[in-house]
Amino acid sequence: MKQSRAPITLTTDFGYRDEYVGVMKGVILSINKEIPIVDLVHDVAPQDICQAARIIENNYNYFPTGTVHIAIVDPGVGSTRRILAIQENGHFFIGPDNGIFSPILERENTLDVFSIENRALFLKKISTTFHGRDIMAPVAARLASGMPITRVGPKIHRETCHLIKLRDPVLQSNGIAGEVVSIDRFGNIRTNITNTCLEKLHVEQKPEITIKSYVLGFSEGSYATLEDDKPTALINSSNEIEISVKNKSAAKLLNVKKGERIFIRGHLA
Amino acid sequence: MKQSRAPITLTTDFGYRDEYVGVMKGVILSINKEIPIVDLVHDVAPQDICQAARIIENNYNYFPTGTVHIAIVDPGVGSTRRILAIQENGHFFIGPDNGIFSPILERENTLDVFSIENRALFLKKISTTFHGRDIMAPVAARLASGMPITRVGPKIHRETCHLIKLRDPVLQSNGIAGEVVSIDRFGNIRTNITNTCLEKLHVEQKPEITIKSYVLGFSEGSYATLEDDKPTALINSSNEIEISVKNKSAAKLLNVKKGERIFIRGHLA
Amino acid sequence: MKQSRAPITLTTDFGYRDEYVGVMKGVILSINKEIPIVDLVHDVAPQDICQAARIIENNYNYFPTGTVHIAIVDPGVGSTRRILAIQENGHFFIGPDNGIFSPILERENTLDVFSIENRALFLKKISTTFHGRDIMAPVAARLASGMPITRVGPKIHRETCHLIKLRDPVLQSNGIAGEVVSIDRFGNIRTNITNTCLEKLHVEQKPEITIKSYVLGFSEGSYATLEDDKPTALINSSNEIEISVKNKSAAKLLNVKKGERIFIRGHLA
Repeated sequence: MKQSRAPITLTTDFGYRDEYVGVMKGVILSINKEIPIVDLVHDVAPQDICQAARIIENNYNYFPTGTVHIAIVDPGVGSTRRILAIQENGHFFIGPDNGIFSPILERENTLDVFSIENRALFLKKISTTFHGRDIMAPVAARLASGMPITRVGPKIHRETCHLIKLRDPVLQSNGIAGEVVSIDRFGNIRTNITNTCLEKLHVEQKPEITIKSYVLGFSEGSYATLEDDKPTALINSSNEIEISVKNKSAAKLLNVKKGERIFIRGHLA
Repeated sequence: MKQSRAPITLTTDFGYRDEYVGVMKGVILSINKEIPIVDLVHDVAPQDICQAARIIENNYNYFPTGTVHIAIVDPGVGSTRRILAIQENGHFFIGPDNGIFSPILERENTLDVFSIENRALFLKKISTTFHGRDIMAPVAARLASGMPITRVGPKIHRETCHLIKLRDPVLQSNGIAGEVVSIDRFGNIRTNITNTCLEKLHVEQKPEITIKSYVLGFSEGSYATLEDDKPTALINSSNEIEISVKNKSAAKLLNVKKGERIFIRGHLA
Repeated sequence: MKQSRAPITLTTDFGYRDEYVGVMKGVILSINKEIPIVDLVHDVAPQDICQAARIIENNYNYFPTGTVHIAIVDPGVGSTRRILAIQENGHFFIGPDNGIFSPILERENTLDVFSIENRALFLKKISTTFHGRDIMAPVAARLASGMPITRVGPKIHRETCHLIKLRDPVLQSNGIAGEVVSIDRFGNIRTNITNTCLEKLHVEQKPEITIKSYVLGFSEGSYATLEDDKPTALINSSNEIEISVKNKSAAKLLNVKKGERIFIRGHLA
């Protein structure tokens, strides 16, 4: 009979130049060669837990039910920090208890959280610096193969998990203050202000976005509808406010980096 | 019974640092977990439709019959440009109607072209900026799973498709004028002059290649047969004229970039 | 009946920006669509055979028995250098006979070495510059599908294979002299001194590591246990001495590059 298996996704700050990602896949395939493995992002900035948290939150739902999402931005590897296994909404999440799953843990849905402690599931030799390979990969492979999550270790209270404050936008009386969370390969400037957040704002007319000394207009269209050489805000495919220039890098043109503040003037609705 | 499935390849200008490629794979696996997915190239220069067109043309035939090739260099995403599904020679191609499949469309072989319009095949929510995830990935996954291509939308005339002029080499009375189309990781200088094109040239002796102020010899061997520190032209694995230096970067040594012109003196045969 | 298949790993100096890796996967899947393919590392420095040799040696055992490991750092492609197929300890290795498998060949275990010469297994057209695609990929796919290794070509004597001297650490009367072999994405400084090697040293107290004009302490813990801003040596997940700074790049802080010498003072035990 065909062995059951779900995909595993990997989101890390390992980059692509070392063997860290590849060897984790070896461990996974050693347990079950049928598991499809997807690299979600490996270029998370080193130690940037917030960025990884956003990527997981925005994208996990595009994967099939049963998928196991491994997230590793883990400056605390080898310390006493726990490793979590979370079951939520038909998906599984494995990663350090350092806030990387904050958006998942803060949802209202029913979810179960476990502390991964069952050494029988790990590699025999466990390094102090690479729990992704030695602990998370083999546990994920077994979950993806149908092992009940209760076997990973004790169930724990969600409230005991480490949460981090994602830099959420701040609703003020005169508008929304947000910031740049990443620059993509095209130079599009991605912010932490979502469309949902924007809808709480009452604006006289079309919203205006202020970044540095620039005041930019807002488009409801796509990249192709923008005017040449005119940086403009739009709603991107992750439902975030994004600043783009048609066929050019907005980040270069405006000389904007991650962390830069943006402001959208208006009154709270 | 085992579900039928063919591979899907991805050729994009998305790069590797964002989640765009990974989330497309999630959509594909949500439809069929059995589909092998291959990253052909994601480092196409942003908006360089010609480069993607060449990569697809040179490589698709190395994949098995039935493979679905998604190509996304799509500055017109969200505009009224169509999305094509092409069936040719047992392979499928999905991408924007912006010329990215020009070499495929210009072949003499019988091929069928469809406009992807059947919204029942798309994700429920369609963004204006990421049709790769919302439209192309789910349609490709269904084609790879055996869905007849006629279901994607109306068949259209090949002549109505947008074609672009790849910068082809120009046969002149005194030789061939071509240009540099890319620099590979090793610093090899790849040109748009193919061996087939070169064979149309009658040369007195071995051809000489002029680039900038350099006049280079031609080798029929491999990298290993080149003389040390001597930039030399050879026929590479894509059947193109390429300029290489043994164990060094020819592009650095000659200070050559994409777009630089090259010339091979001779008389048309 | 389900076709037998084992994974194939790829370790190359091809990088990610060209189509070289992707098209090899096309050739593999053309022979067997069931084969899982894992990118181990593609960012080996161009022509750095030693680096590839270390990566293969350190990681192959994390993959399941039967895995075929292709290693391509191949400046001699197209010359008369042989292409090897090695069977060792249940794993297969395919790559040029240029020393890339030196650590494998020097082990005491029983192993069999073959010269890949059976053209019936290759692609029909063989380029002079890309044997990875034209020879190694199709042979690997057949081995991964269960073809006996004896079919690739004649068995050869291990002693006839090209070996290279990996820059091993030197045990001296007053300590161990080693060097930096790579810098990882986090700026961790990886050396050629393994823990096994270190255990041969008798040190008065905890070992001290000298690099450039710095004398560094040694920690038995993980990254998280290091003191802030204090470069420290530890044993990494590949069992090597590594110099790290907590949440920072040790390579940047110490301005260290590949090839830099390190020294650990002590007396041979």
